[in-house]
Amino acid sequence: MVKVNANYKNLKQNYLFANIAKRVFSYSLSNPEANIIKMGIGDVTQPLTPPVVKALIKASAEMGVKETFRGYGPDDQGYNFLKESIVNYYKSNCGVELYPNEIMISDGAKSDIANFTDLFSNDNVILIPDPVYPVYTDSNIMLGRKIQLIDGNESNNFLPLPYDGLECDIIYLCSPNNPTGAVYTKEQLKLWVDFAIEKNAIILYDAAYEAFISNTSLPRSIYEINDAKKCAVEFCSLSKTAGFTGTRLGYTIVPETLICDGESINKMWLRRQTTKFNGTAYIIQRGADAVFKDDGMKACHEIIEYYKGNAKIMADTMTELGIWYTGALNSPYIWIKCGMDSWEYFDMLLNEIHVVGTPGSGFGRCGAGYFRLTAFNTRENTIEAMNRFLKLFK
Amino acid sequence: MVKVNANYKNLKQNYLFANIAKRVFSYSLSNPEANIIKMGIGDVTQPLTPPVVKALIKASAEMGVKETFRGYGPDDQGYNFLKESIVNYYKSNCGVELYPNEIMISDGAKSDIANFTDLFSNDNVILIPDPVYPVYTDSNIMLGRKIQLIDGNESNNFLPLPYDGLECDIIYLCSPNNPTGAVYTKEQLKLWVDFAIEKNAIILYDAAYEAFISNTSLPRSIYEINDAKKCAVEFCSLSKTAGFTGTRLGYTIVPETLICDGESINKMWLRRQTTKFNGTAYIIQRGADAVFKDDGMKACHEIIEYYKGNAKIMADTMTELGIWYTGALNSPYIWIKCGMDSWEYFDMLLNEIHVVGTPGSGFGRCGAGYFRLTAFNTRENTIEAMNRFLKLFK
Repeated sequence: MVKVNANYKNLKQNYLFANIAKRVFSYSLSNPEANIIKMGIGDVTQPLTPPVVKALIKASAEMGVKETFRGYGPDDQGYNFLKESIVNYYKSNCGVELYPNEIMISDGAKSDIANFTDLFSNDNVILIPDPVYPVYTDSNIMLGRKIQLIDGNESNNFLPLPYDGLECDIIYLCSPNNPTGAVYTKEQLKLWVDFAIEKNAIILYDAAYEAFISNTSLPRSIYEINDAKKCAVEFCSLSKTAGFTGTRLGYTIVPETLICDGESINKMWLRRQTTKFNGTAYIIQRGADAVFKDDGMKACHEIIEYYKGNAKIMADTMTELGIWYTGALNSPYIWIKCGMDSWEYFDMLLNEIHVVGTPGSGFGRCGAGYFRLTAFNTRENTIEAMNRFLKLFK
Repeated sequence: MVKVNANYKNLKQNYLFANIAKRVFSYSLSNPEANIIKMGIGDVTQPLTPPVVKALIKASAEMGVKETFRGYGPDDQGYNFLKESIVNYYKSNCGVELYPNEIMISDGAKSDIANFTDLFSNDNVILIPDPVYPVYTDSNIMLGRKIQLIDGNESNNFLPLPYDGLECDIIYLCSPNNPTGAVYTKEQLKLWVDFAIEKNAIILYDAAYEAFISNTSLPRSIYEINDAKKCAVEFCSLSKTAGFTGTRLGYTIVPETLICDGESINKMWLRRQTTKFNGTAYIIQRGADAVFKDDGMKACHEIIEYYKGNAKIMADTMTELGIWYTGALNSPYIWIKCGMDSWEYFDMLLNEIHVVGTPGSGFGRCGAGYFRLTAFNTRENTIEAMNRFLKLFK
């Protein structure tokens, strides 16, 4: 008799965003006239930029012509044209030197982050910051892993650091953080790198929001820290950088110098991917490549600036209302203190001002009493939502 | 200290196709004038059809316009337009009725087949036909599963059937088979369905090549067999049906009535996918949808007939040479008997007639002494390769 993976029973019943969608749907049904502004799920609203669309169309047309048609992509996980563009991007964006074979292209950072711990045994202790993007926790619960949480809170500005007596083998870090928007400084990140090297631990570094960092003294890649190539994998994505949430492309950096337990993690991940994945569509890789060209990058940064303008409007509103927050300045997220239960706050905002956000408690126990709003809506909607906040809380 | 997944050490060093590519590359280097005909990897050569390209271009353009831009896709794994098209396809293709929520869209059958056993515990005994697509075996070795092989050979025409005393929990079947091209009849498939129900086992049915079945009495879906919805998941793909090897779209059917160990497998797979995957690109889903429209299906079938014409030329050549084979008639693969070691045969064909195929031993121990050729090359190349066979073996 087939036995199911009993670890699935330890998952909470509903995926956070499905739960939110359900409540919003049910409210809309009974209040069809309500003009609901969604600042919950971290989805973008601005279309793909003209250089990206042009590249997608060109590649689509190529696929219809025998001479330029492409079948299975290269075994080493990504076309070289795209890997070279990412090498150049790292050099100019943050002065980090990479080899093309350290870059593996996928359909998104979510898949790679969730699948990466396949490479490790069940004996490891997994360290996960709380609050955090639910995928880290859920994917490890599914594997039956030993999870240890490290608390983010107001006193550490939601940027937990290693402490005496901390023991773990696999460390998730996310900076700029989802959900809090908080960003580690180089000095703080160095503490984590030193800790990982001392403990022979590996850092799984989620840099999905790096393009939102304005403050040039903050690190955009963990490889800006000395020795990070000996202990860290970095996950990145075009979802937020270039509006690829529905276009799907991510890339994971696995340094050649990263050896764990005597094994090359680069070779193990390559083996995992060649066995269980068949690469990202050629068309999408061409669209992604256009992001990294001069005109593509310029067009993306105009949109990022637009979202950051929204974030600033939210930050200014919270300052005006005297509501404690973190994030917003180098991130598309603002993380605000509710002064009540997160879901109560969710229902209040939905019912009173028709604004949808994400209850902090959905990101972990330390998120209780906090709330995430995203800057991905339109300027008009962001201004309207903040005006409603002002009316409600003043 | 982080510990790696020791099961990876049990994998064979090289992925089959990487090994072939290396030998061909090295031969080409020292014989640059050789006109090598590749009939090894199962990659298509004909471009995407005009209706598909048109849909891809239209969807790419939509992504550049605010009003038609799409972010994250629906949580239930695939746009409804595509799910409805697949419902209709099943109805007309093989008379099978499905609900849209039984269909989950992904980036390819390989990912889904390799990830699906995440849903089951390590206690299960996995039954894998030998020879077989290496992904079934490798993905289970990575998980440290107990694998039992069931032999395909000349006496069962490479279509193994359940036998007295066989005990297992998870059963992989692939029909039309990769690599042998052999196709189960309805009567044979019913023996497997009855066996699975009796044993409370689950069948993971790979139907990636169903579109190549000409003989209308052969099943194109396992759900043509009574009660299969109680015991089987079906994996399908547009890679071979519509030339999507580099465009990436597959779909997995998980019936609502499939309950294992008290759990809904449909709900478990949905949970796995919403946690560890973010869906397939909107653009690609639109391209896929065009495959299922009348003009799209007509255009795809013209290409499939072209490939099947190649298969027939190969079959006729083997008949003329008196070489034993299976497949070719309802499949893009022909599986021929070498009369020597598979890799020796590989090297002989590469050196003597510059034809590349796939050594049967790469698909399992029962593949030793056999060889796979694919029908995906051009008509000219197929004819040329078969002329070289005639010269070599006559």
